[in-house]
Amino acid sequence: MTISRGPQAFPRIEYLRRLAAVKSEMARRDIDVLFVSDASNITYLTGYTAASAYVPQGLIVTIQEEEPSFILRRMDAPAAIHQTFLDRNKIISYPEGLVGNPDKDGYDVVIDFLNEAGFAKRSIGLEMKNLPAQSAAKFKSRLPSTKIVDCTNAVTWLRLVKSDLEIAVMREAAAISDAAIMRAAEVIRPGVREADAIAEIAATLARGVNGKVGTRIVNINLCSSPRTGTAHINWTEDVFREGSQINIELGGVRHSYCAGIMRTFSIGAPSDRLRRLHDAEVAGLEAALDAARPGSTCSDVANAFYRTLQKHGFQKESRCGYAHGIGWMEPTASLRDGDMTELKPNMTFHLMLGNWVDEDFGYVLSETIRITEKGVADVLTSAPRKLFEIG
Amino acid sequence: MTISRGPQAFPRIEYLRRLAAVKSEMARRDIDVLFVSDASNITYLTGYTAASAYVPQGLIVTIQEEEPSFILRRMDAPAAIHQTFLDRNKIISYPEGLVGNPDKDGYDVVIDFLNEAGFAKRSIGLEMKNLPAQSAAKFKSRLPSTKIVDCTNAVTWLRLVKSDLEIAVMREAAAISDAAIMRAAEVIRPGVREADAIAEIAATLARGVNGKVGTRIVNINLCSSPRTGTAHINWTEDVFREGSQINIELGGVRHSYCAGIMRTFSIGAPSDRLRRLHDAEVAGLEAALDAARPGSTCSDVANAFYRTLQKHGFQKESRCGYAHGIGWMEPTASLRDGDMTELKPNMTFHLMLGNWVDEDFGYVLSETIRITEKGVADVLTSAPRKLFEIG
Repeated sequence: MTISRGPQAFPRIEYLRRLAAVKSEMARRDIDVLFVSDASNITYLTGYTAASAYVPQGLIVTIQEEEPSFILRRMDAPAAIHQTFLDRNKIISYPEGLVGNPDKDGYDVVIDFLNEAGFAKRSIGLEMKNLPAQSAAKFKSRLPSTKIVDCTNAVTWLRLVKSDLEIAVMREAAAISDAAIMRAAEVIRPGVREADAIAEIAATLARGVNGKVGTRIVNINLCSSPRTGTAHINWTEDVFREGSQINIELGGVRHSYCAGIMRTFSIGAPSDRLRRLHDAEVAGLEAALDAARPGSTCSDVANAFYRTLQKHGFQKESRCGYAHGIGWMEPTASLRDGDMTELKPNMTFHLMLGNWVDEDFGYVLSETIRITEKGVADVLTSAPRKLFEIG
Repeated sequence: MTISRGPQAFPRIEYLRRLAAVKSEMARRDIDVLFVSDASNITYLTGYTAASAYVPQGLIVTIQEEEPSFILRRMDAPAAIHQTFLDRNKIISYPEGLVGNPDKDGYDVVIDFLNEAGFAKRSIGLEMKNLPAQSAAKFKSRLPSTKIVDCTNAVTWLRLVKSDLEIAVMREAAAISDAAIMRAAEVIRPGVREADAIAEIAATLARGVNGKVGTRIVNINLCSSPRTGTAHINWTEDVFREGSQINIELGGVRHSYCAGIMRTFSIGAPSDRLRRLHDAEVAGLEAALDAARPGSTCSDVANAFYRTLQKHGFQKESRCGYAHGIGWMEPTASLRDGDMTELKPNMTFHLMLGNWVDEDFGYVLSETIRITEKGVADVLTSAPRKLFEIG
């Protein structure tokens, strides 16, 4: 029995638009074939979101063919037929005997496919930052006459400017992020275990809002006193206490598109230092939003923030954010000093102003933003931009 | 201000035991230095569980020094001081300016460290299956006089046999898995949205049981009619219906140790085919548990299952499981035909009998198991081994 195509997050024409941009980039780089193995890039080009990236899989994109071929494990082929816009004959599954097999794996099937399709003497692009070194070596040894070109982030850069359809999905994700922050404000109380607060926050991320469910629960970071100087601890077995500070980073997800948000909570009155840092960061955020205009650079945005923060007597060492979308961080543009990426309408960023000042003291604030046609950035997340005081 | 060491999942002596085994393996391979970049291996050797593996980081293990050096991003150093057993002078952080920097990254700092420590002309082990091809190339070009040896899974194989302390933690994780399955049985009802059931299941995974909270929420797969032939779909925007079948895979987590479990649910009476497949799989599971004794091989276990299933008129193409622990799958031993890994006491596996028979029909059943001193395997998960009938 066959499985039918399921509801699609985007119409076929949207995927064809994305693929056309990839093919233009391939032509520019003089590549005949591109092997796309990064899981978020696969999602971008097909709509596939099943969690199977722990085994070899990827798309073969050629200039000639409208749709790519998707080579993946047999167990996952039905999900690809169901989730993607691809014609089912474009989904090529390899036998389960290649999983956990020390002699041969799914990359051998990809290489066989390239050989049989007559690409062995052509130029093939690989995502070398994503591909394990062992597997890249296999491509080189089994395709000795092929010109292998590092195409790391070739597709990823194309994801930076979103379509209006993608922005609409990110707004849905951002509404979930807001709801989860508001739920955190309801459940963080002295004596409550961190894990019990996380239970409520995670449930909100799944239920979603406005009839739009969360389609994945991604990492939630909850760093509470005495851990507010840490950035990426999920949570602990501890309870909240009178006087605790709590830093939260989370994001709703719709169809793999994430919308990050960070807020800081204080049980009882915040310290004077925390309040001053919060005021400085909010001022910095407003300066960054004002600087985040088409034609400016990522570096401009970061420096607008850094300058404002310094005026308030604080500093931040880390970058101020990164390109944001499918799978959370897009490893391309960074809001950092020296990143000369020019801002364009519908680029989206996680404007991440988390500031870990001391080993034992940090503060977090962030928004998911969109560059507009002209003027200041559009903020997709909309939970109150305040230091949440509990009790 | 400094951050103090937090509660530790394991005593120092446990980490030193693990490191001693790594150093023996290094001596056997004639390696002077091992760079451990796999996130689960870092957790294993130090107790670090913060979610920072998206940037370069890793341990430098040498034969001479008792504790490894942990090189990571400055933002994450406080978490390393707080979470790991390492002396704080063993935690070496690199500047934030190397994050999102196209010219230089954290691996350059690792290479500088190796050079300055006088290892440039020695033999250095790298985990080539984990390291991106781009980064492996950097090690080779910047360490031209070094003998670089692929040590993929050298540490990972040592994780296969657990200590009694690790088994105790996996039992705690398994109890959470059981509770999440029982919660699923309470909330799966006709008309309920999949995402609302997931909200309750995820909350249970966070709250934990018996005073032991879940320390992470990992992927939950919920594949319902008409998607029971798929394996790795998180969940959809759909509602459960009268007559729906629901396949669930999930796992509780304690200190990054996972305990996977799969169960199948039917709203209303299951079809005859589903009931026959369930009976066959339970019989196969019992045969596999009986075969999973010290001295047998992974292949023996898989074939005991396959034989029993065939007697009942069914087949399964995929492997019957894999080594299981930190971060879910350990990419070493597989319960598959031809894997001659000999079973030893306290090896742990996810005995994964999910069987995707047709594109539109599959069934799931799994347990987390431990190889005992003698006799049949010990099953850590203990939710009823039944086809859950709802309503």
